Amino acid sequence: MRHFDCVVIGSGPAGQKAAIQAAKLGRRVCVIEKGAAVGGAAINTGTIPSKALREAVLHLTGTSKRLLFGENSRMKKQITIDDLIYVSQKVIHHELALVREYFERNDVELINGAAHFESPNMIQVVRGNESEHITADKYFIAIGTRPAKPASVPFDNKAVFCSDGLLKIGILPRSMIVVGGGVIGTEYACMMAALGVKVTLVEGRQEVLGFLDREIVEALMYQMRRTGITLRMGEKVAKIEKIAANGNGHNEPLVSAVLESGKTLRAQTLLYAIGRQGMTGLLQVEKAGITADDRERLKVNASYQTNVEHIYAVGDVIGFPALASTAMEQGRLAACHAYGQPVNSVPELFPLGVYAIPEVSQVGKTEQQLTDAGIPYEAGIAEYRELARGQLLGDEDGLLKLLIHQDTHEILGVHAIGTGATELIHIGQAVMAFKGTVEFFINNVFNYPTLAEAYKVAALNGLNKIRHV
Amino acid sequence: MRHFDCVVIGSGPAGQKAAIQAAKLGRRVCVIEKGAAVGGAAINTGTIPSKALREAVLHLTGTSKRLLFGENSRMKKQITIDDLIYVSQKVIHHELALVREYFERNDVELINGAAHFESPNMIQVVRGNESEHITADKYFIAIGTRPAKPASVPFDNKAVFCSDGLLKIGILPRSMIVVGGGVIGTEYACMMAALGVKVTLVEGRQEVLGFLDREIVEALMYQMRRTGITLRMGEKVAKIEKIAANGNGHNEPLVSAVLESGKTLRAQTLLYAIGRQGMTGLLQVEKAGITADDRERLKVNASYQTNVEHIYAVGDVIGFPALASTAMEQGRLAACHAYGQPVNSVPELFPLGVYAIPEVSQVGKTEQQLTDAGIPYEAGIAEYRELARGQLLGDEDGLLKLLIHQDTHEILGVHAIGTGATELIHIGQAVMAFKGTVEFFINNVFNYPTLAEAYKVAALNGLNKIRHV
Repeated sequence: MRHFDCVVIGSGPAGQKAAIQAAKLGRRVCVIEKGAAVGGAAINTGTIPSKALREAVLHLTGTSKRLLFGENSRMKKQITIDDLIYVSQKVIHHELALVREYFERNDVELINGAAHFESPNMIQVVRGNESEHITADKYFIAIGTRPAKPASVPFDNKAVFCSDGLLKIGILPRSMIVVGGGVIGTEYACMMAALGVKVTLVEGRQEVLGFLDREIVEALMYQMRRTGITLRMGEKVAKIEKIAANGNGHNEPLVSAVLESGKTLRAQTLLYAIGRQGMTGLLQVEKAGITADDRERLKVNASYQTNVEHIYAVGDVIGFPALASTAMEQGRLAACHAYGQPVNSVPELFPLGVYAIPEVSQVGKTEQQLTDAGIPYEAGIAEYRELARGQLLGDEDGLLKLLIHQDTHEILGVHAIGTGATELIHIGQAVMAFKGTVEFFINNVFNYPTLAEAYKVAALNGLNKIRHV
Repeated sequence: MRHFDCVVIGSGPAGQKAAIQAAKLGRRVCVIEKGAAVGGAAINTGTIPSKALREAVLHLTGTSKRLLFGENSRMKKQITIDDLIYVSQKVIHHELALVREYFERNDVELINGAAHFESPNMIQVVRGNESEHITADKYFIAIGTRPAKPASVPFDNKAVFCSDGLLKIGILPRSMIVVGGGVIGTEYACMMAALGVKVTLVEGRQEVLGFLDREIVEALMYQMRRTGITLRMGEKVAKIEKIAANGNGHNEPLVSAVLESGKTLRAQTLLYAIGRQGMTGLLQVEKAGITADDRERLKVNASYQTNVEHIYAVGDVIGFPALASTAMEQGRLAACHAYGQPVNSVPELFPLGVYAIPEVSQVGKTEQQLTDAGIPYEAGIAEYRELARGQLLGDEDGLLKLLIHQDTHEILGVHAIGTGATELIHIGQAVMAFKGTVEFFINNVFNYPTLAEAYKVAALNGLNKIRHV
């Protein structure tokens, strides 16, 4: 029976960073991964494949340039899934190699097998017929989530998909119903629509991505509709049924979704993208004294400890925002906490990025949050069409919004939609981290022509409004 | 005879910002523009057209994606200049409209005509047969530069071009000699090479873009060579001659350049891109008591005043760096100085951006400057290939370098080459403006997958090196 200073269960972004941080702090670390590949959903089924697909979609369909170059820019008339998967696989392989290399370089031992707790300090790892008991002083649970698959939905990976299954879709369908307007549903709806699939998105709330600033979400919904996506907001799906193929050609509907309002939607395919489900049952966390919630997810305190002090949980298994970026940070913070390493972390400045088409990103507060908190602010807006770079890129619809404190002029939030939004947000994030004011952007010199100039344009716009109050 | 609070001569970026700043400070302002279009070289012949061309080149040739998608991504076999100009014209028209709109909105009067000084306080504006005398209390000279065209070079806009003439090139040549490895020569050499033109670049120094960090320049030269550009460094052109066409097909050389070292280069075309020339002679600045240098450029003090106190000069006419971004800032600063408006400006943090292929950008000090100044630093490097986003973009060659003070850990410089370099640099610039240390990047959460993550990777790399010193 081996003993480690710490055991990390799961090799996704959260597990990786916890393991490497612990190793850098001089601990003997192992990572247990039950899948054939390291990297978790981020690399294998989630973030990376979907972003690789997105990149391929944007490039192959010329979406980002169509405005400037006309329909000529659609490079291939018929896009095959193979075109898209080629890129995805290449990137995945490279990322996998990188993760393995980081582990090796930091002397992190990678153990293949399925772990479960035997007691608060002992786990068993099962791999085929073999098994091994391992003890450790600290544990980091980073096992992620899987798509929730309610029994009432007839998943078959042919007509009815969860997000994992969708990646293995063979031929592009003519039409798709996407159920759920969260990150996954929204991202895939946009990609499919860009590929020419007729998409209907059903979401119970009045907007997609409810955690984002309202104006940005409205701009996104406007642009999604313009791409041909039908948005059914405030609607819930009551029943999903497969329709028997009648052989009337490959365009026939194969699935129907009856909404609670009584409408029936039909399409060739359906993507069910509501909810992600923990897998702590398999881990038998109860033997360690940990309580999971009804979706098998774990509650943690501000230091990412579960109700059992020496067992931490990080990444998607602890819920929102379930992004790779925050998962990594949680892993790092948990390991630092476990080994008494002081860290500076400012959760209020964690960015959110969603790779819809167009992409959206934010840092800090939304207008709604500021209004609710009674903080007097003004919004300064820059539209990409006002920027030479926006013109050059053919992105007329992007916008960047600064939320500025009316009195102190401090930056309270940055919201962006459009080309490069997830990159640009970090300029504002840095200024916010140093408690900078809007005057920074007025006085700063930006490269010309860049999208970064949006900060100056937005700052001028906001300051003008404040002066006229 | 009309009187204005201030007269701005030239409507390029420097003139625009000077005029608008003065107007915002409540002054009655006119801008005098001798060209048919406002906007100066930035919009009409320089920055914007060349960046529009570049964007078109990158898109049409698929340069940025070829790695991932293979030769298929070259969209059109035969690229015509019309393809490229279509985009350029569209963007130019839009930018022109924007400038006119800004002038109108700020009550800046635009006067078409050629100005010259009659006395330190009076100019005459000539337009066809009409002329008008105008007096003003302050003047801003923002007349830009034109390409230097030595008499020894047989410019004909068919085989031998200056950068202005190149924009009117009809058919893409098979080969081109580019004389001069400054911003203009380097940018056009890269574009032509991406379009499949066989390019030879001749530069008297040992490197292109001598003002940039050496490592970045070397990376750029490496990548330029890999695109098929022949670099003739440390060579000077002694003689440029046209060769009579012999009718042996459209691939025949039409121009030869004899180097001082004795070598003879031949190509179908030649771009002469050494030096820009002021035009203060036309302005008769001597009548205002101003002295120009031998290239008709003006010397100014730190407040952008010429030797005549109430006459300022801004933009390319005052020399390096001759970028639109800095020209705008100079215009703004000069107007603020003229009207006693305090400003915060940090010239050490002005960014430099060059739209070569790949693009390069920097802010702060170079390694050479730090070494010369005896400041102990360490370089932290992130290669795009280490980033998921770099993989997704197919940009394996980009890199970002942080120069970090060994003791204080302050960021002393940021240098980038690759996709989005001119945008990314502004994250580092913001941190530098607030005297941030490398620890900011360690503790910051970046969207995943972004190129912005390069800051964290570079920070970790740099800190590791510092710890091992």
